[in-house]
This record gives sequence, structure tokens and C-alpha cells, in this order.
Amino acid sequence: MDAQLDQHGRLRHLLTTEGLDGRLIAEILDTAETFLPVTDQAVKKVPLLRGRTVVNLFFEASTRTRTTFELAAKRLSADVLNLQVSTSSTSKGETLLDTLETLQAMQVDMFVVRHQASGAAHFFARHAAPGVAVLNAGDGRHAHPTQALLDVFTIRRHRPDFSALRVAIVGDILHSRVARSEIHALHALGVPEIRVVGPRTLLPAAVDTLGVHVFHDLERGLDGVDVIIMLRLQRERMEGALLPGAEEYFLNYGLTERALRYARGDALIMHPGPINRGVEIDSGVAYHPRSVILQQITHGIAVRMAVMAMILGSHSRAPEGAHALP
Amino acid sequence: MDAQLDQHGRLRHLLTTEGLDGRLIAEILDTAETFLPVTDQAVKKVPLLRGRTVVNLFFEASTRTRTTFELAAKRLSADVLNLQVSTSSTSKGETLLDTLETLQAMQVDMFVVRHQASGAAHFFARHAAPGVAVLNAGDGRHAHPTQALLDVFTIRRHRPDFSALRVAIVGDILHSRVARSEIHALHALGVPEIRVVGPRTLLPAAVDTLGVHVFHDLERGLDGVDVIIMLRLQRERMEGALLPGAEEYFLNYGLTERALRYARGDALIMHPGPINRGVEIDSGVAYHPRSVILQQITHGIAVRMAVMAMILGSHSRAPEGAHALP
Amino acid sequence: MDAQLDQHGRLRHLLTTEGLDGRLIAEILDTAETFLPVTDQAVKKVPLLRGRTVVNLFFEASTRTRTTFELAAKRLSADVLNLQVSTSSTSKGETLLDTLETLQAMQVDMFVVRHQASGAAHFFARHAAPGVAVLNAGDGRHAHPTQALLDVFTIRRHRPDFSALRVAIVGDILHSRVARSEIHALHALGVPEIRVVGPRTLLPAAVDTLGVHVFHDLERGLDGVDVIIMLRLQRERMEGALLPGAEEYFLNYGLTERALRYARGDALIMHPGPINRGVEIDSGVAYHPRSVILQQITHGIAVRMAVMAMILGSHSRAPEGAHALP
Repeated sequence: MDAQLDQHGRLRHLLTTEGLDGRLIAEILDTAETFLPVTDQAVKKVPLLRGRTVVNLFFEASTRTRTTFELAAKRLSADVLNLQVSTSSTSKGETLLDTLETLQAMQVDMFVVRHQASGAAHFFARHAAPGVAVLNAGDGRHAHPTQALLDVFTIRRHRPDFSALRVAIVGDILHSRVARSEIHALHALGVPEIRVVGPRTLLPAAVDTLGVHVFHDLERGLDGVDVIIMLRLQRERMEGALLPGAEEYFLNYGLTERALRYARGDALIMHPGPINRGVEIDSGVAYHPRSVILQQITHGIAVRMAVMAMILGSHSRAPEGAHALP
Repeated sequence: MDAQLDQHGRLRHLLTTEGLDGRLIAEILDTAETFLPVTDQAVKKVPLLRGRTVVNLFFEASTRTRTTFELAAKRLSADVLNLQVSTSSTSKGETLLDTLETLQAMQVDMFVVRHQASGAAHFFARHAAPGVAVLNAGDGRHAHPTQALLDVFTIRRHRPDFSALRVAIVGDILHSRVARSEIHALHALGVPEIRVVGPRTLLPAAVDTLGVHVFHDLERGLDGVDVIIMLRLQRERMEGALLPGAEEYFLNYGLTERALRYARGDALIMHPGPINRGVEIDSGVAYHPRSVILQQITHGIAVRMAVMAMILGSHSRAPEGAHALP
Repeated sequence: MDAQLDQHGRLRHLLTTEGLDGRLIAEILDTAETFLPVTDQAVKKVPLLRGRTVVNLFFEASTRTRTTFELAAKRLSADVLNLQVSTSSTSKGETLLDTLETLQAMQVDMFVVRHQASGAAHFFARHAAPGVAVLNAGDGRHAHPTQALLDVFTIRRHRPDFSALRVAIVGDILHSRVARSEIHALHALGVPEIRVVGPRTLLPAAVDTLGVHVFHDLERGLDGVDVIIMLRLQRERMEGALLPGAEEYFLNYGLTERALRYARGDALIMHPGPINRGVEIDSGVAYHPRSVILQQITHGIAVRMAVMAMILGSHSRAPEGAHALP
């Protein structure tokens, strides 16, 4: 059985976009559409998850991502716990399990997990009690499914027909869980041409197995595309041996007005944020008229509300069997 | 008058289990029983403390304990403030009073106080305004009453008759506020035989005044008991002169399958958590079929809800006299 | 147009007391009066801002100030996000704008901003989307308007007639945003005599342009005043070259029983807190029968509720235009 679906094919956890079929993704996006007006009105609150407890369990700090999950949960009227856990204080394996078991014993309904180790969210999902859900908010280099879903949601609002779309993902593909999750989601929705653009040192060895077209030249990579997704360059990479420096990177792969001209005249500009101005994107381009970067943030809350509501709305916590002991 | 009871003998603060009579403890446990189903259902929320403000005032960090109080308060619909105060930035005495006075001026209804100094919660209670309640969430080596109450709650659910019970508390009795509070609660409920088991260096000098049987040998200490309460060994102790090392401690006092055989065949295994696997308890024993360690966590929220509701439900904040100045 | 008023002269942001006219200040104080009973009753909650999102965006740590804004927002039923941002991790200008834009994209309704740079709140207000409000919770040496408003609120409750009042502000005027905001508010309400008292090194060069009387001698400065406002002395000043030391400062400018005798017999004693006992105020004087320091805290919540309700009550978020892109 699929790790994130129940026996009826409904979402039970959200761990990855890999293996999610287009119909289920479309259902998530349709549900997110219904939440978009909620966040627009003065009373941004629906009682769907009243009395439910959502834990943001972040082993890796990210104020921005944590905040969007927190707002999504609060606008669904859930109670939210924010737990920032330093992994230095925990050893692996068993104590990760202890953390899970302990919070489950507190009757938590949903874990939003971010961890620097690939597979951490799967680990949680595998050991979660019936009725307890796990949302992957980023695990190592592996997956960041809500980011990918908000990206395709944003694309769909502007380009509803995926069947003739050309999308370029630009930057550090090698370390990017965002890129990986986006590629799976775009494939599932039938996007015929997905390109990855970046220096050889920042592309995975087996990049062609992802079903994408590989470009090392930005201008060629952007040529004629409908959507440009810029990735964030982690500062650590620039200090390592993989890259010559921020300036040279910007010269070759930074999105500028000039580079933009190679794409279609109405191409969307996207970025998961936070942006490094002058590194992967020019300051002027970030808030370009065709930039939908801020919309991505707004949509991110609607998409997260949709996922939470779909999972916790259809499944309720199993009756506690813990007191069965005589 | 008692520091934690009002003139009608009802709970006004919860500072210690010392001096609480069995009838009042039973009333708390009975109330906690009524909250247990609340945390089991999907909508884990009752409006009892709506509009009340509960402050978690932690001078000593403890994410786990803070979280259980936070969840208890939120599930009673209270507003919760989490304040982590470093004692390095405050001097003692007067400024502790300033902290109390300042938060009281913000119309806080309840303080949940954790402090490394024995007596801190009593200090707060002594200076609290009428109608403002103090819950002791652990003060120095002195008391941790909600932990003791959740422990006896857990025992009662499995062994309702206290009158023929043998309970062994194993480990670092000397530094343990948990042990002290448990001993008082077990006595009050009529447990006829309470044993403490540990090395001489980790037993208080006047241990016999506590009305317990003292054992230095684990197997003899466990012989025929109905309940085993393991204490957490603080890592600091192992680095000090009191103990030879974690491995030797585990050999002598760690709870293993082998040691377990000396207790009754249906003996409950308890631990306040978080557990140190391989130090005071064997990994396999922690989630043993007879372990009720995770239940203790679940019960802890119900017990804390009960205490909060009993105190704030029956007492309302006194009308503010602060504006009496002409 | 005024930076903090709309075209109808109503509050749109609260950035400074400078330029606020007496009628608007009185309206804020009258509104705060209506909230004072709310915080006194058991259910300290009104649904005015239900479903609104308030962000405490603190670039400068202040648990105390943050807490009062958080309680004010929660008692109005708003959802509250606490974001502590270290300015070391952000560069200035553009990324401050990115922070604003990002949080606005999350459909935040109100920013409570505290920043060490004078003008930060104005910057936010200037770039805020229609319907998004900014409250200044202290910016550099510039302004701290809610502190000034709660001070005049407290004075008015005890001395309703401002037209014959003498007020002395004592201490580090030079670095104090509190003093600046108080002076503007007291002027606007028609206080005829405002004095500032402090050593030459802690008075601004152009102090006389503020329309105040300057005193370097505490006893003369307090002579016959109705209200004494002590300022907090920042520890940093004492380590710098501006001051000889805490003890000598206390000898010359500390408020003691002895110094108090120079003021009127019914003079109010005020302090924005937290107090430095033995530096700017004597321990015994802090909770003197005529001290209204704790009342200031209580009033601070009512005043902040009033400002939030006035701004968000009359203005609703503009319909999102972000999806206008084809």
C-alpha cells in the first residue's frame, strides 16, 4: 500500500509528490481554490479543525515555512504547537521515535515535520498511530510537497492548460527538494516539457532519469518557456567547492531582464523564497509585473489549508486503545 | 491556613502533594476521569476557561512539561502565554516579585511556574493577588505535584484498590522532586508499602523520615511489587562524584527484563520521561506490554485540565482594586 | 496627507504621538475606558478581531512589550503570530521590504513593529498594502506611542483636568523614545507645564525646541509637580562615557522618599518599566502608595486593545488584487 494514501486512495499523510496521480493533485488544487476566498476576507477563519491539535515539529529552523503552516492551521481553527527541536540534543532512530510517541500520547492529530535528513517524514508516517497524520515540510534533499503543490496551483491559476506548457527550473537542482517535488507534480499533471537549468556541479548525476531536459546555458534553457522557476541558492554552497562565487553565479544563472527576454513574453516568474537578490535573481525582476512570487506565498496558505482539511476532515483519530491493559 | 487551600478546603493553588488529603486527591482524579474522553475525541476542546489567561512561566527549560500544560490550558479554551525566563538575567527576590506583579497587572489568571529553586512556587503563591492561582510545575528538588497526581491517576486506572499495593520508586531519590511528591500522594491514598531503591549516594540522609522502606539492591527492592516507578537519571549526576558512570548504574539499577522478573507478573512499569534508554531503563522494557509510560503522558493532560478547571472554575478573579487611588 | 491618518482623519496606523491632535487622543482614551472592564472580568475576551491576523514583528527583543500586544490582540480574539527577527541576519532596506511583502502575502492584517532603527515603523507604513495597519511598538530613539498613550490614560484617570497640570519627566531624555512620545501627547492634551530633568549628557542638544522646561537638579525639577514620570536607564549608558556610574546617578537623579517630598503631596509616580531598583528609583518608592506603575501595565493592554479595534474595526482589508495577472 502507498505510504501516504489509505485503502480508498485518499490522502492519509502528505510525504512527497512522487507517485501522487494527477487526479488527486487536481483535487487538492480544487480544494485550495475554495480556501482562497477565506484568507481574503476580514474573518479569515473556518471551524473545520476546531479542537484538533497540529504540531509544527521543526528539526531544521525555517520561520517562513513554519509560519505558513501555523497560519493555515489557525485559520482552520486548530490549536497549534510550535516545537523547535535541535537535533544536536537528540540521537537518531529511537529518540526520534520517542518524540513521536510522546507527542502522540498528548493526542496530537497532525505532525508538520521538517528535518535535515531525507526520509524523516516517512519515518514518522510509518510509525504514526492510526488517525494521526504527517505532513512533510521538507526532508533533506528529498521532498517538499506543499511547496510543489502551491507552485502548480499558482501556475494553474494563470495557465490552466498544462498540456502545452514548457517549464524551466533554474539553479541548484542537486540539493533541492523543491525541484524534485516540482518535477514529480508537473509530470503528474501532464506538463510535456520540463527543463532543468544549472551548472554541472549542481545537477544530480542521474538527472536524465527524472524525465527532464538538461541545460547548462541559461539563455537556451529559458528559450520559449511559459514558466520560470528560480531556486534559492543556499549560501553554504557558495562557500563550498561547488561554486566559484555569488557574483559569477549571478552572471551565468541569475535571472535578469536580459535573460528574461529569451522566455515567452508572458512567462511567469516564480521563486519559493526567500530570495537572494543579486545571487539567483535581480532585484528588479523579483517584483516584475510578471512575477508571481508573492502570490505563491498567498497560495501556499490555501494549499496547506486544503491538505490539512482533506486529511483531518475525512479521517478522525482512532479511539484510543491505550487503556486496554487490565 | 494551608498555603494551597482556601478557607473551605478547596484547591486555590497547587504547590505540593504534601498535606493534600486523600479525599481531595481522589476528587482531582475523579475530575481528571471526566476530561479523559475530551482528549480522545476529535474536537478536544471544552469552553470552561474561555477568556482566561494562563502563563507558562518557565525559569528552567522543559519543552515537554511546558507542552502538556499548554495543551491542557488550550483544550480548556484558555489563552496561553509561554514565557521562558533566563534566571541569569534576573536577580532573586525582589525581581521575581516584579515579574509576578507585572504579569498580574496584565490580568493573568494562572501562573504555571517552573524554577530551579525549591520554594519558588510557594513564593509566587504567597504574593499572588486574590483570585490569581499558581501551579507548581517543578521547583528545585522540592515538588512536582502534577507529575505525582498523574502517576497515581495512572495507577488507579489499573489497580483501583490502593489498600494492598506495593510500590517501588527506583533511582535518584536524592535529587528527585518527582519521588518526593509521589511518596506524599501514595501515602495520602493509603498505599501501605512504599519502597525507595537506589545507591546510598542518591538517597537523602533522612530518607527513613519519609515513611518508606529503603533498598540498595534492585532485585530485593522489586521483589513482589505491583508498581515500579523508574526515575530519570540526570546526566549531570553521572559527571559528578555521586555515580561511577552510566554503564555501571545500568548494571545495578537499570530496569531490564531480568530485573522485572522479581516484581509481580502483572507489575506496572512507569517513568516520568523523558527516558534515558540504557541508563535507567532498557530499550525493550520502555515499551514493554506492561509499560504504562505513554499512558502517563496522556493522563498528564487530563490531570492538568482537572486541576486548572477545579481552581479557576470555582474561584473567579477578584475585582481589581488597583484604581482605588484618588 | 498624514502618514498615520486616512482622508477622514481616522487612525490608519499608529506611528507616533507627534501630530496627533487632542481630540483623537481623547477618542483613543475613551475607547480604552470601554475595554478596561473587559480585562477585569473572568471572560476577558471580545470577538471584535476574530479571524484577523496580528503579527508581532520584533527586531529588538522585548518580552514585556510583546506580551502586552499579544494579550491585547488575543483578548480581541485575533490570531497572533510572534516573530522575533534578528537584524544581524538581514541586511537593510530591501530585505525589510521583503519581510513586509512576504507577511502581507500571508494576509496579515496588522503589524506590531519594534526596531532599533528610528523610522522603521514609518517605512513599514509607507509600503503597507491598503487595509494593512502598522503599530509602532518602539523605533530607535524616535517614538513609542502606545507607551505615551497609556501614560496619559493613567494620568487622566487620576487627574482628569489636564489644563493645570505640571508633569516632570526624569532621566535619560536623550535616548528615550518614551519621553519624546510623552511630550507630544501631553502637549496635545493641553498640559501647560512639562519639565524634563536629567544630567546635561542625557538631554538632547535642541531640548528647548520640544517646548519643555529643562532642569538639571532633581529637587528643583520635582518642585510642586503633579506627576513624576521616571525613565528607565539603559545599562549600556552606564558602561559608556555618558554617565559616571549607577550609584552616582541614583544619588543625583534616583527617585527616593526624600526627593519625593519636593513634589506635591498627591503627586503620581510613574515608570514605563521594567524598573531598575536602586538606579533610577528606590525599591521602596516603586510600590509606594502613590505609585501607579502597575496600573500603567493594566492600562497598557486596554489602550492597545483600543488602538487595534479603532484601526481594524473601521478599516477592512482591501480585496486582494494580486490575481489580476492574466
